Amino acid sequence: MGFRAPPAGRAAGSGSAHFKEALPRLCEAVEEADFIAIDGEFTGISDGPSVSALTNGLDTPEERYCKLRKHSMNFLLFQFGLCTFKYDQNQSIYITKAFNFYVFPKPFNRTSPDIKFICQSSSIDFLASQGFDFNKVFRSGIPYLTQEEESQLREQYEERRGQINGNGPITYTPNSSMSVSHIPEDQRAFIKNVEEKVEDLLKNSEKSLDLEPCTGFQRKLIYQTLNSRQSKGLHVETLENDKKERFIQISKVDDEERRRREQQKQQREQEELNDAVGFSRVIRAVSKSGKLVVGHNMLLDVMHTIHQFCGPVPEELDDFKEVTMSVFPRLVDTKLMASIQPFKEIIHNTSLGELHKRLIEKPFKSPKTECPVDFQSYNTSSEQLHEAGYDAYITGLCFISMANYLGTFLTPPKSHISARSKLLEPFYNKLFLMRVIDIPYLNMCGPDLQPKRDHVLYVTFPKEWKTCDLYQLFSAFGNIQVSWIDDTSAFVSLSQTDQVQIAINTSRYAESYRIQTYAEYLQSRQKSTNT
Amino acid sequence: MGFRAPPAGRAAGSGSAHFKEALPRLCEAVEEADFIAIDGEFTGISDGPSVSALTNGLDTPEERYCKLRKHSMNFLLFQFGLCTFKYDQNQSIYITKAFNFYVFPKPFNRTSPDIKFICQSSSIDFLASQGFDFNKVFRSGIPYLTQEEESQLREQYEERRGQINGNGPITYTPNSSMSVSHIPEDQRAFIKNVEEKVEDLLKNSEKSLDLEPCTGFQRKLIYQTLNSRQSKGLHVETLENDKKERFIQISKVDDEERRRREQQKQQREQEELNDAVGFSRVIRAVSKSGKLVVGHNMLLDVMHTIHQFCGPVPEELDDFKEVTMSVFPRLVDTKLMASIQPFKEIIHNTSLGELHKRLIEKPFKSPKTECPVDFQSYNTSSEQLHEAGYDAYITGLCFISMANYLGTFLTPPKSHISARSKLLEPFYNKLFLMRVIDIPYLNMCGPDLQPKRDHVLYVTFPKEWKTCDLYQLFSAFGNIQVSWIDDTSAFVSLSQTDQVQIAINTSRYAESYRIQTYAEYLQSRQKSTNT
Ligand SMILES: Nc1nc2c(ncn2[C@@H]2O[C@H](COP(=O)(O)OP(=O)(O)O)[C@@H](O)[C@H]2O)c(=O)[nH]1
Ligand SMILES: Nc1nc2c(ncn2[C@@H]2O[C@H](COP(=O)(O)OP(=O)(O)O)[C@@H](O)[C@H]2O)c(=O)[nH]1
Repeated sequence: MGFRAPPAGRAAGSGSAHFKEALPRLCEAVEEADFIAIDGEFTGISDGPSVSALTNGLDTPEERYCKLRKHSMNFLLFQFGLCTFKYDQNQSIYITKAFNFYVFPKPFNRTSPDIKFICQSSSIDFLASQGFDFNKVFRSGIPYLTQEEESQLREQYEERRGQINGNGPITYTPNSSMSVSHIPEDQRAFIKNVEEKVEDLLKNSEKSLDLEPCTGFQRKLIYQTLNSRQSKGLHVETLENDKKERFIQISKVDDEERRRREQQKQQREQEELNDAVGFSRVIRAVSKSGKLVVGHNMLLDVMHTIHQFCGPVPEELDDFKEVTMSVFPRLVDTKLMASIQPFKEIIHNTSLGELHKRLIEKPFKSPKTECPVDFQSYNTSSEQLHEAGYDAYITGLCFISMANYLGTFLTPPKSHISARSKLLEPFYNKLFLMRVIDIPYLNMCGPDLQPKRDHVLYVTFPKEWKTCDLYQLFSAFGNIQVSWIDDTSAFVSLSQTDQVQIAINTSRYAESYRIQTYAEYLQSRQKSTNT
Repeated sequence: MGFRAPPAGRAAGSGSAHFKEALPRLCEAVEEADFIAIDGEFTGISDGPSVSALTNGLDTPEERYCKLRKHSMNFLLFQFGLCTFKYDQNQSIYITKAFNFYVFPKPFNRTSPDIKFICQSSSIDFLASQGFDFNKVFRSGIPYLTQEEESQLREQYEERRGQINGNGPITYTPNSSMSVSHIPEDQRAFIKNVEEKVEDLLKNSEKSLDLEPCTGFQRKLIYQTLNSRQSKGLHVETLENDKKERFIQISKVDDEERRRREQQKQQREQEELNDAVGFSRVIRAVSKSGKLVVGHNMLLDVMHTIHQFCGPVPEELDDFKEVTMSVFPRLVDTKLMASIQPFKEIIHNTSLGELHKRLIEKPFKSPKTECPVDFQSYNTSSEQLHEAGYDAYITGLCFISMANYLGTFLTPPKSHISARSKLLEPFYNKLFLMRVIDIPYLNMCGPDLQPKRDHVLYVTFPKEWKTCDLYQLFSAFGNIQVSWIDDTSAFVSLSQTDQVQIAINTSRYAESYRIQTYAEYLQSRQKSTNT
């Protein structure tokens, strides 16, 4: 997530073609980094009725997680920014390396899943207005696979190899009448013709024979038919012609040549597999490094990253926490950091752009950074581009400023605080919870805060009611705070808990509306999900 | 739909900025046209499990329509091509005007619906590989509204105007205690402050007063409070500052000035409304003209066009037919035309590209066309662009070739057949049905064909079964044709109807599979949808 600030140059490593070249440089940068900042861009935020229905001010952490999982995971994370920060003791500066990747689930082959994702016009329109380059995503976005998808693809390869080598699940057993390799009547002439052509090939001086393009079923039949002959010195392979039609090529080879070809093919397949895993390798490298990962308002970034590149996020919040900690053992959310002690009092606007502006002023100090010559820096404002790589960079700067500020409280004060400092531990693994009134963060490595909600009422009413009707209704009970749930219900927080019972009593005989305590609401909710 | 052929220039009228300028030219072209060819590009085809599950060879027309409605309408039609054809008697040529529009549901204002649409990676990847320019869609796509959405927006405007003029649904009735305009306690100081400022304004020599930006609720309260004062010579208006924050401006005006301003505003709103209706005005112009509309394999084009620009397509096929005929009273599908008499025998491949190639060879004649100088023509192969406008143009050419061919059967033969000729009537309003074995088309202006399906069996079996298992199972009953439904069921068509009963009898005691007649299948399906 994060904001879209005035532009400032361009990061290395976008585009599928450059990816292979960028990956080793990225892995090196990750390995040497003190910490890594990340940022993602999505095709949308919520497919639910409204963003505020998605983020009710009195959601429990479990409710919020379930809503995000249900209404946000069908969007595509299609730009991923990553900036590594390494502190250079001698110069007292941070060396930064920024990367900006476009990702897109390009179908890998004919059997790979055809991914569907949702776009939300407001999100797309916002990115478009910022000059986002959609062509880069769709034309040269880097593909990716989850662990599970990679295993499936690997199995597919192995199965196919097995079939070709004649020891796969399908074997040539001409006499078994229920055999899967039974040749249907309408295919017999076709197969007979192929067999004759192969006989010819074996007799004549040609080295190979290209059959006509045919269907997958026919190719399977051909493989099965020729299976027993492979030892006689035939290599059978499926190729594609210019028109993308698949045909079978049969070549005469000796045993050694055949083995060589098969090895080559295996290598090619391994390469293909690596390409298909694509961007997921970046996430695996970051995960493997165990380094501190910093983001701004990063809950959705983390959810999408895991969902797309590791595996579907689990149904239960506790399971999600476990998975997250196994992928990213240490997280810091700069929005949460800026919202709590000791920053809360001196930072008033925590949106990334405003935060960055605030953190270059007193009492904070703008960190000194430098980037290697072969990385384009984000310090010039040369291009009208807004990138996740830039946001990741800015997020890292914010983190450093705040970390160093903590050092000023030490005796003697320290102007540099390492990313591994104990001073940062209170901020670890707490992800900012947007617009929850009384729970500032999701605690990723333990149970969540459980604030008292004794002063909260759950109110249902006719859909004609407006906020002012609720103010009206509760006018006798002091100041209130309204959190809309949908158009016929809302939470109303009273300022004094002792008014709760009086409000409920007064409502007993009301016909148009109904009031319950928060505890009653939770109970009836529990019941309805259990049945 | 349609194919993506080698590129050939560029059509007029893309981009939101040019749209206003293109629209009158388009309307003129439509008015003078003999017929209009159209083509659309979508972000996907099917969100179901597989395309072939979406298009079973033995779907009934109703089933097919329901599947397409359910699994295809959430994709976005985001490029619309239109080419008008007008015959010039003197020169014996067609004058063509091609238009190519990018459309995108850009949110119009803060209350307009935030459209979500699905993208299918294979479709996106295909368009990307053809050089499709996604930035043009997302950055400068033309917005659109359905009739219903336009009415809603118009009402919104009127309601707001009513409120401001003090005769809207919300009126200022200070003594009614349940009034919606009740000012909540925490807003009283704010409103009091505004009232004081206004008093000042009325006394001092300033012409106007800008209030601080505030919430929508506060603005509503301000409007209500100031309502009764408007006659005292105040004009109240909501404006936006540079930061896109909304604030209220209060100006001193005399009655005439106030009326002038309100008129201006009304005009501005009408303009805004027209802009919001946007691309839908193209469809309305085509519809209003009542002209013949030609497409290639156009069922999905028609469905998407109606769904996006007129109103959600109805649940029932019969209702869809009715709506379609009211929007486009005369349709011709060139794919269907090429698939039936007298073209069937001499045209073997009906995909748009191949059809076009075939139709410039004997016995067909390539039609002569010309396009006005201010329209870029599609005859040069200058640019690597593939556009819906080009496909529409090619579709029109195919239609002309086939129409003229019909003229060669007349005595004396005619080399030109008008788009209004009686010879074309057999092809009217029949839309090609993809991959249905025994129903070539959807009859848009009457009941559909009801082929006998006595020779069809509905078979269910374990999901391990393959096509060859089915061949095996039915090997005693002659040749069969398999239409997969899902991985545990399929239709099997026998070549001889008299084998049906025998097959069913044989299956009576089978445990792993089950056979029903097609009639039984329809019956049990009916039952399950009725309950
Ligand atoms: N009946 C009624 N429902 C409202 C009102 N305001 C908000 N809601 C409902 O509460 C949900 C959340 O509203 P809100 O917090 O204002 O955010 P928004 O819908 O994103 O603009 C909305 O989607 C509505 O269903 C209101 O004044 N009256
Ligand atoms: N059990 C089984 N199911 C199949 C087989 N072939 C196809 N199907 C099912 O039928 C559906 C339609 O298949 P098909 O016509 O081959 O098209 P495709 O799925 O788009 O490649 C598939 O999605 C499968 O669920 C098969 O050999 N065995």
